[in-house]
Amino acid sequence: MTEGTADHESADRAAASAPLFARVADEVSIYEVSPRDGLQNESAMIPIEGKRRLIAALVGAGLRRIEITSFVSPKWVPQLADAEELARTLPAERGVTFSALCPNARGLERALAVGLREIAVFLSASEAHNRANINKSIDDTLSVFSEIVPPAREAGLAVRAYVSTVWGCPYEGDVDPARVVRIAERLIDLGCYQVSLGDTIGVGTPRQTHDIVRRFLDAMPPERFALHLHDTRGTALANILVGLELGVRDFDASVAGVGGCPYAPGAAGNMATEDLVFMLHGMGVRTGVDLDKVIEAGNVAEQVIGRPLPGKVHRAGPFRLRRQPTRD
Amino acid sequence: MTEGTADHESADRAAASAPLFARVADEVSIYEVSPRDGLQNESAMIPIEGKRRLIAALVGAGLRRIEITSFVSPKWVPQLADAEELARTLPAERGVTFSALCPNARGLERALAVGLREIAVFLSASEAHNRANINKSIDDTLSVFSEIVPPAREAGLAVRAYVSTVWGCPYEGDVDPARVVRIAERLIDLGCYQVSLGDTIGVGTPRQTHDIVRRFLDAMPPERFALHLHDTRGTALANILVGLELGVRDFDASVAGVGGCPYAPGAAGNMATEDLVFMLHGMGVRTGVDLDKVIEAGNVAEQVIGRPLPGKVHRAGPFRLRRQPTRD
Repeated sequence: MTEGTADHESADRAAASAPLFARVADEVSIYEVSPRDGLQNESAMIPIEGKRRLIAALVGAGLRRIEITSFVSPKWVPQLADAEELARTLPAERGVTFSALCPNARGLERALAVGLREIAVFLSASEAHNRANINKSIDDTLSVFSEIVPPAREAGLAVRAYVSTVWGCPYEGDVDPARVVRIAERLIDLGCYQVSLGDTIGVGTPRQTHDIVRRFLDAMPPERFALHLHDTRGTALANILVGLELGVRDFDASVAGVGGCPYAPGAAGNMATEDLVFMLHGMGVRTGVDLDKVIEAGNVAEQVIGRPLPGKVHRAGPFRLRRQPTRD
Repeated sequence: MTEGTADHESADRAAASAPLFARVADEVSIYEVSPRDGLQNESAMIPIEGKRRLIAALVGAGLRRIEITSFVSPKWVPQLADAEELARTLPAERGVTFSALCPNARGLERALAVGLREIAVFLSASEAHNRANINKSIDDTLSVFSEIVPPAREAGLAVRAYVSTVWGCPYEGDVDPARVVRIAERLIDLGCYQVSLGDTIGVGTPRQTHDIVRRFLDAMPPERFALHLHDTRGTALANILVGLELGVRDFDASVAGVGGCPYAPGAAGNMATEDLVFMLHGMGVRTGVDLDKVIEAGNVAEQVIGRPLPGKVHRAGPFRLRRQPTRD
């Protein structure tokens, strides 16, 4: 069977494949967005008790960075009108950081008032999507951030940033990765500790991910950015694998894959946390998350939201031996 | 922004990442299994007219290797009792190969009688699954094949082979890849032109896929094997990416992700053809398949089967620009 495989070909193959996983981190950090990114797009109003149950299940599963809500105007996102009450009534959990989206100074005030230790700001990499999503130019949005990120930092808060439509804009099409790097650099310079790069409409493929990640690694160390991938076309986990192979250590996910983007038509489904954990643990990468318990959290999410959610592992379960059926 | 990134680190990164896609083929071959692997597990009986519509849509989309049915006993798989009639009445298509599963000499007779040019034989990599699926030991199954593959070749047929449970057995757990290579070598020695390696229960993760594929590449050239991945836990496309990165050129898929395995509890969903094509084309890899038309074929599959199917791209569509909404 080895005929036809010349030795030099074998050597070529070894050279080509050996570095595939050389940069994969021993441990990665998962930033859980289901309570915010997931629930903000649900048409039904989720009772606050359901949100508390979901967050408790996520904490119980070992997730340590959880975005619980958004201090946007309840006029924009009525599903999150309970933001203050939710943030104020969550029990403090040792080693767990709860964060919330803050679009402006009013949002920061609200986050400070309820005692949150981390906030996140957000904008798009494309003008058209930024205008559709927050009704401002990118420059004007960065001006707003320059008025809230430094005060937030002075108040002792950590600030994260999201950049949407990095892999493509539903209105403009291709997005120049060099432009995204420049936006991210401005966000880091303002005081954000990490920029989360969003494939908002889920159109990314692996070579493109490779190009984007390489440009970021040329500009900043890996801990400064995260990948936030929507699985609209099934490519999220393959894109994450490329990020892993290049040394990315931070990934956003949403249990059971709940979530989308209300102003990005066709967007549906975040990367499901339990599917990501299944792949990572299968590769020997530590996450601090308990797979069985995050599957449980996925089931809680389905109960709370009241419909089947797209994640796969919470349905299929982990790999467990079955008893052989009797035949004949 | 470049502070903290020493030059030697940059160089390391370049060395580590440059070969990621060095082995990716310019063109790959997709072997479409929806009419057989997909429909054999449906609880409803699909009318033969629906099967013809599905196959016509697949041919129209540019798929050139299509497994249309199985010549197993209708007692085992009543859904495919129309095998002869379907094979006999399909219009010949230039450049398209229709194939069918054949478990034994009787199956080969039936395939020859209807004039098929390609058949496929199948067994499992684990004894327990092989016994559950075809009620024989692996050695006894290979003995049966030794009585049908050579005569099939003498009759001018191409013969493909499936090996199931390569990434894990629902009854035995881990499967030794060295054992799978030995089984595959016996199949090639018998006259099979290609062995399709199945992750029947969809438990594979990328490092494991790397290990399996490397062992195969050490034993035989890449055209001798294909990856047949079930997306039960969402990892199929990430595993395919590893195969691509190592130089694999043959992948099985099933439009809209239809299919599973009746004797592997928990198995659900083949790799969806349109999701695979979306990723491959996004990477600049040619498939000969028209993405819009294979999405159409996915919609035909849903109509014919009468329920939503798991593939994503046939639902989300390709990446197309939208008109920007007006706000304010």
